[in-house]
Amino acid sequence: MDLNRIKSPADIRTMSIDELYELSAQLRKSLLEKLAAHGGHIGPNLGFVEPTVALHYVFNTPEDKIVYDVSHQTYIHKMLTGRMEAFTDPAHYDDVSGFTDPAESPYDLFTIGHTSTSLSLAGGLVKARDLKGGKENIVAVIGDGSLSGGQALEGLDFGATLGSNFVVVVNDNDMSIAENHGGIYDNLRELRQTNGTAPCNLFKAMGWDYRYVAYGNDLRALINAFESVKNIDHPVVVHIATQKGCGYAPAEANREEFHFGAPFDLPTGQPLNISEAPGYDDIFLAETMEMIKADKNVAVITAGTPGVLGYTPDMRKLAGDQFVDVGISEQEAMGFASGMAKAGGRPIFGVVSSFLQRAYDQMEQDVAVNNTPVVVNIFYGSILGMNDVTHLGWFDIAMVANIPGWVYLAPTCEEEYKSMLAWAVKQTQYPVAVRVPGGSVVSSGREFPDDYSDLNKFELVEQGNQVAVIAAGTMFGIGQAAVNVLSHMGVSAALINPRYLSGIDTAILDELAAKGVKAVATLEDGVVEGGFGEKIAAYYAEKGDVKVKCYGAPKELRDRYDRAALLKECRLQPDLIAADLVAMSPANK
Amino acid sequence: MDLNRIKSPADIRTMSIDELYELSAQLRKSLLEKLAAHGGHIGPNLGFVEPTVALHYVFNTPEDKIVYDVSHQTYIHKMLTGRMEAFTDPAHYDDVSGFTDPAESPYDLFTIGHTSTSLSLAGGLVKARDLKGGKENIVAVIGDGSLSGGQALEGLDFGATLGSNFVVVVNDNDMSIAENHGGIYDNLRELRQTNGTAPCNLFKAMGWDYRYVAYGNDLRALINAFESVKNIDHPVVVHIATQKGCGYAPAEANREEFHFGAPFDLPTGQPLNISEAPGYDDIFLAETMEMIKADKNVAVITAGTPGVLGYTPDMRKLAGDQFVDVGISEQEAMGFASGMAKAGGRPIFGVVSSFLQRAYDQMEQDVAVNNTPVVVNIFYGSILGMNDVTHLGWFDIAMVANIPGWVYLAPTCEEEYKSMLAWAVKQTQYPVAVRVPGGSVVSSGREFPDDYSDLNKFELVEQGNQVAVIAAGTMFGIGQAAVNVLSHMGVSAALINPRYLSGIDTAILDELAAKGVKAVATLEDGVVEGGFGEKIAAYYAEKGDVKVKCYGAPKELRDRYDRAALLKECRLQPDLIAADLVAMSPANK
Repeated sequence: MDLNRIKSPADIRTMSIDELYELSAQLRKSLLEKLAAHGGHIGPNLGFVEPTVALHYVFNTPEDKIVYDVSHQTYIHKMLTGRMEAFTDPAHYDDVSGFTDPAESPYDLFTIGHTSTSLSLAGGLVKARDLKGGKENIVAVIGDGSLSGGQALEGLDFGATLGSNFVVVVNDNDMSIAENHGGIYDNLRELRQTNGTAPCNLFKAMGWDYRYVAYGNDLRALINAFESVKNIDHPVVVHIATQKGCGYAPAEANREEFHFGAPFDLPTGQPLNISEAPGYDDIFLAETMEMIKADKNVAVITAGTPGVLGYTPDMRKLAGDQFVDVGISEQEAMGFASGMAKAGGRPIFGVVSSFLQRAYDQMEQDVAVNNTPVVVNIFYGSILGMNDVTHLGWFDIAMVANIPGWVYLAPTCEEEYKSMLAWAVKQTQYPVAVRVPGGSVVSSGREFPDDYSDLNKFELVEQGNQVAVIAAGTMFGIGQAAVNVLSHMGVSAALINPRYLSGIDTAILDELAAKGVKAVATLEDGVVEGGFGEKIAAYYAEKGDVKVKCYGAPKELRDRYDRAALLKECRLQPDLIAADLVAMSPANK
Repeated sequence: MDLNRIKSPADIRTMSIDELYELSAQLRKSLLEKLAAHGGHIGPNLGFVEPTVALHYVFNTPEDKIVYDVSHQTYIHKMLTGRMEAFTDPAHYDDVSGFTDPAESPYDLFTIGHTSTSLSLAGGLVKARDLKGGKENIVAVIGDGSLSGGQALEGLDFGATLGSNFVVVVNDNDMSIAENHGGIYDNLRELRQTNGTAPCNLFKAMGWDYRYVAYGNDLRALINAFESVKNIDHPVVVHIATQKGCGYAPAEANREEFHFGAPFDLPTGQPLNISEAPGYDDIFLAETMEMIKADKNVAVITAGTPGVLGYTPDMRKLAGDQFVDVGISEQEAMGFASGMAKAGGRPIFGVVSSFLQRAYDQMEQDVAVNNTPVVVNIFYGSILGMNDVTHLGWFDIAMVANIPGWVYLAPTCEEEYKSMLAWAVKQTQYPVAVRVPGGSVVSSGREFPDDYSDLNKFELVEQGNQVAVIAAGTMFGIGQAAVNVLSHMGVSAALINPRYLSGIDTAILDELAAKGVKAVATLEDGVVEGGFGEKIAAYYAEKGDVKVKCYGAPKELRDRYDRAALLKECRLQPDLIAADLVAMSPANK
């Protein structure tokens, strides 16, 4: 069978069941070859080969609409919907994103990268269809790991009441990225063990009709199940038990490791580039493991992404009940941390910048209003971080720094990160967020204070009396280089490490102005609008004697951008910053 | 029985059951008298008299800890924990807040005003206790209406796995603020109808042990149930069926109307001040009902607060399937709206400013990333709005205006609000949020455009060439008055209605500077930091020829503040703004 002749799902709807089995085998083989050479989401896609084939075989896509939760399991979907080359021809491997994208195909309804959203989105499609009088099937595909997210549970609760055609495929592989955590997983297990017949049933309890498919990687069973619910007139859950990593022994055996991975050796499953430089996750792990040992009230919390924090299964085991994975549920993580802190615990919640967005309200209500000394470590909050449009780490400064009560710290290097993290956990006066720097680890060899309780005191690193560079966090190195360029140009430039993103040091700003500084550059590793620099610009703008230019990312959503190109576009380069400051200075007016 | 002799729960633990019955009757009587004279949350408190008495009778508070969800049902709790006077003596009615508050009493664990947080917070207390080796009971009290919130469902899911003493009292009165919406409510009903014996059980499906109390306003039954779970060694749900408004016939009969109310006539239940001036909610209702009639694809969406939108039960009936109450679940509302908009529907989600915080991530991921033309109307986003610390409407500008892709409009009066709302629903190019003005309705008699698609074009309302006032939304009237004051002082002041909060009109800003304007005031009805004014300050700060002062609320959490006093403190007064601008002008340097 020549996979490249499959241009759309119509091409598989004429196949016999035997041909579909062969198709599935070939899809898996090609997929594995790409994954081994290119990396990507491995386990989720290997486990969803047959369900994808069956969905497109049974449902009349794209008129019938499929919404994939997280959408990192849509590689086979892409292969069947006009994008086969991106999986069979190495020259085209990068033609497609790792998620659904309407710009790529009409079969992709939404750009999705966060978990737990499919039921809400599909519910809206159901409603719009019903108001219009349409008849198409609306299908949402959601993994068991995504079910713990509040939005998914809200979507299950409300979706059940829509009263018309709405098919939810629950892809149950008994795993989140790591193992599942939460009471609902006992129920899913019971349903698997009873072939779907257990009377206590989460989905029924939330108002859904229910079907169970024991062999969720068997085409015949899947086709039968999907045909039985096609054109159904009410909401129904089709619970399918699948094997994460199905068809590839190493991925079946090591499901967490093979959730997402870099290129690997196909015969053995060994990663091809094993010597990775230590990252800030390793530092977080080492520092927090020490804290855990020293104080039984310390607990490290993750919402389903222990690997981001450096916590491997072995380390989790070592941390014992002082490591808490609440599952994919950031709201719970933040509220839980607040409760712990209230009762004398020392919670350290490690979270990816763009996932923290889920806990915005909890940061204000559960934490700030109650002034509970929660510690948050924000990973990938950087232009240098993840560059998928659904995972941008650009927005957390504008988010966290503008919530009253939170102290938001931006370390510039390994040494400062350790100092700030240690203080954050030791103190019990404030909720503190620490922004883990982006890019590779910077070791400055500098010494840093062990106390940051005198809030918003900037560090004057280099004196200067004509211009100043205030460079926060990851951007400190660029700021330092800009000051060097200026120095070579004969311009006296002050260099400031602001340390705090959540407030400004008006004394130091006044001092700069008094010394004669006429132009200031603020550098931050995030969006300018609503960010840190604008606080400084607003402060100086009222007096009018110092010009300020704020450097950072544009208020835009960019997908798979080139990091270096974006930095240049934002003029986040030492020479450009130096030139701007000189141009802004009075002598050059 | 003299209620005022009850100083703490210890005083009721020595009472006989008969005395407790009498106590409950007297508590209800005093509470009703205060509610009739003072207003407040009526139904939730009347229905929770006996459970509160039983909780404090059985559990050893404050060593045992009770966390109340939303905490608007804690009036009886306050009466029993040292704050009786605030309910029996009219002179002290305002001594306490309407929510729990640790500053008032050690029996109040957290300041809580948003729904669905109790399980997270209590879960954290459980964890901290277990790490410490404590033995106290941790109790969370949550109403059925709060269960639809994602954070509550996340909390149920994860809380079940904590494996130690954790008692959740589900206060099931078959109501949210309005009627319940969601599939879980069918299950709660089935549990009520089967005396808790139905095998399909939401709580068991989420991993909890389970008890049922059919008569949740009966002291004996409650005491027995609570005693049976006191010191239990694992998580357990005690599901109690209560009567909202219990013991007061008008509140039992009209449960939505009596959820929260102004003072009323005790014998009849009639509200004492029925002639209320029409508000923006009435305008929203009238305008959207017309849209609903004109286009079957329009739907108004609420997340459990239809009354905020002006949608009474009658109006909801009239709107039929074009009015959607998703229950308390803002994430679902936003994702659902995005799905609808994607499929050609015209969703209009009306939401309270501080509750929208729950949907921050969805505004970015589900909506902005997909550029779905969702319409949001944000109510109470104002310093003049709700003044409880848990319900501040100060933060939505910094939140919404800094998410790429969203158009955020700030109408200044009734006429402009109607124009902007109409455009938002008619167009399909952008997600649009409209900020419903705060305070009483302003009718300007002015005419406004019917098209706002040329983004970020400010309106120059009055010409001026020395200073300028850029006054957004609710603050336009103060800005206009400031310009009048300046005019009387002989200062030529421009007046600008920016209309957009999400972007700036650099052409008009340049024009002002070119004309000779040297000082600009920006006025906004929210926090300055991260807000609209700082965008203008940053723009001018780079050039340095125009001074800018940003007026708005401080980055603080204030509780029950005096609105006029806060405006004055923020210098949001015409005379103060005029004086500042004069002082900032070069002649006065």
